[in-house]
Amino acid sequence: MPVPIVLVLDADPLPRLGRLTGRARVVHADEGTLAGLLPSADVLLVWDRASHAVREAWPGDGSRPRWVHAASVGVDHLLCPELAASDTVVTNARGVFERPVAEYVVALVLAIAKDLPRTLGLQRERTWQHRETRRLAGTRACVVGSGPVGRAIARSLKALDVIPAVVGRVPRTGIHGPDDLDRLMSRADWVIAAAPLTSRTHGMFDARRFGMMQPSAYFLNVGRGELVVEDALAEALSRRWIAGAALDVFAAEPLPADSPLWRLPGLLVSPHMAGDTVGRWDELGAQFVELYERWAAGRTLLNVVDKQHGYVPGH
Amino acid sequence: MPVPIVLVLDADPLPRLGRLTGRARVVHADEGTLAGLLPSADVLLVWDRASHAVREAWPGDGSRPRWVHAASVGVDHLLCPELAASDTVVTNARGVFERPVAEYVVALVLAIAKDLPRTLGLQRERTWQHRETRRLAGTRACVVGSGPVGRAIARSLKALDVIPAVVGRVPRTGIHGPDDLDRLMSRADWVIAAAPLTSRTHGMFDARRFGMMQPSAYFLNVGRGELVVEDALAEALSRRWIAGAALDVFAAEPLPADSPLWRLPGLLVSPHMAGDTVGRWDELGAQFVELYERWAAGRTLLNVVDKQHGYVPGH
Repeated sequence: MPVPIVLVLDADPLPRLGRLTGRARVVHADEGTLAGLLPSADVLLVWDRASHAVREAWPGDGSRPRWVHAASVGVDHLLCPELAASDTVVTNARGVFERPVAEYVVALVLAIAKDLPRTLGLQRERTWQHRETRRLAGTRACVVGSGPVGRAIARSLKALDVIPAVVGRVPRTGIHGPDDLDRLMSRADWVIAAAPLTSRTHGMFDARRFGMMQPSAYFLNVGRGELVVEDALAEALSRRWIAGAALDVFAAEPLPADSPLWRLPGLLVSPHMAGDTVGRWDELGAQFVELYERWAAGRTLLNVVDKQHGYVPGH
Repeated sequence: MPVPIVLVLDADPLPRLGRLTGRARVVHADEGTLAGLLPSADVLLVWDRASHAVREAWPGDGSRPRWVHAASVGVDHLLCPELAASDTVVTNARGVFERPVAEYVVALVLAIAKDLPRTLGLQRERTWQHRETRRLAGTRACVVGSGPVGRAIARSLKALDVIPAVVGRVPRTGIHGPDDLDRLMSRADWVIAAAPLTSRTHGMFDARRFGMMQPSAYFLNVGRGELVVEDALAEALSRRWIAGAALDVFAAEPLPADSPLWRLPGLLVSPHMAGDTVGRWDELGAQFVELYERWAAGRTLLNVVDKQHGYVPGH
């Protein structure tokens, strides 16, 4: 049996796949060469999480990889109808990003509660201006997204005595269904978007939903930019329907320099880095190698994405 | 029996003591009138936490309040040798500030770990610059100060899976003694000062101690400014002995506009606000009224400060 071909859609830094030596032939692709190389590959590792090249290059029929692994939690950047309909297995990087994203959300929430951006501004002006800040304990969070990331966020907030409610597509123990979303959003101090991007979630945070939030409440997005109708958020902030927001993800990334979002009052902009801690590339590479070993041995893969829903189900 | 006189060293906003009506005569003092009014007072409420007027005005002998309550955790601003030697009971505001200060410390630690100050700076420049940040879980904190504030800080950090070690004056279960301080500081990622200001703790964070910290470590002070030799901290930051620091308290407050501390590389300055959440004035007023009711009924007071050590012992 020939050595399987692992095609890597590259990003900087390259994955360290030395442990595959002799057990796979690793071939590197970029956006330009991907389409030509895909039919001969057994496995595709989508290391680049910013590229949509897989969606465009995926072969409609004929030969194609039997397994696609994404070095990310979301798979919206690679799932096309042809891939979804095929028997190719898609896996994701569940387990690597949950904790860092949860820490990042707590960092944002606490920075807002303790008025840190203003403190940094006053420091630049050498101005001593005492203010009263908010107590985090006892506030209410509505976490939208019941996957591992959303649940990790809820756990970390709860550890600091925030009262979290998690909303998912399907209600189950400890998880509210979509019918509860409006009610939970309307009484939350923090609304935190951590849902996968699917046809159901696209644009779910719109003018109507921002309009039902409390004027003292904050909106945070660490999921995908397209969950949010950005113009509606801009209006909600400008008109003070809500107290503020923090976005780590945007419909267009990198956020263009002329985007009005950079300077909206009360909006904190960060460059899609919530989950990106030092050392994660090594973790992601090691995770792929582990999955490869299972795949090569004919064992069941882990982190298998439900291609209709766009995430790993049932957890 | 005459109605007791409660003298209040005022600060803005005034305490709400309406519940004392008919049970006490509330007399208001400022720094100028305090000395003249002290001998006739039964109780002194030190509402102003920034003033040192009590230390200067305390009567050496003769008539004086039998009970002094500080609307703060630290009592260094009012304890003078004469008061310490007298039979006047001193109580503090234990119970009000612990949680807010702990939240504030976690806010600072997470803001540093997630590089938030830089993110805010890049946003002002409309610059999308992705960076990798630090994972908080698994890092080590050395909390110096084993009172309710220090222990609350350790609890909150532990809730986010930081590994805390608490150092106090007297070793006991779960608390390290002073002999362990150097060793714990030298391996900590976060050194957090939350000790009371006493003759033992004055200047304890000096060049020698900053020199033994890891170059990747951060120093935070939410105790009292005088715990730190500020020049030594400035040198440690300038020479990159440590990675950064955050100070909420200073030897001179407000920090003068010409202080070099405002602009030290890697130093975050905040204006002594760690514990000051919305609603605390009402909590502090209610706490004093509760203690007054115990005192007036001849019951044992709570939150009694050990005047030799400057804090409430044994907890």
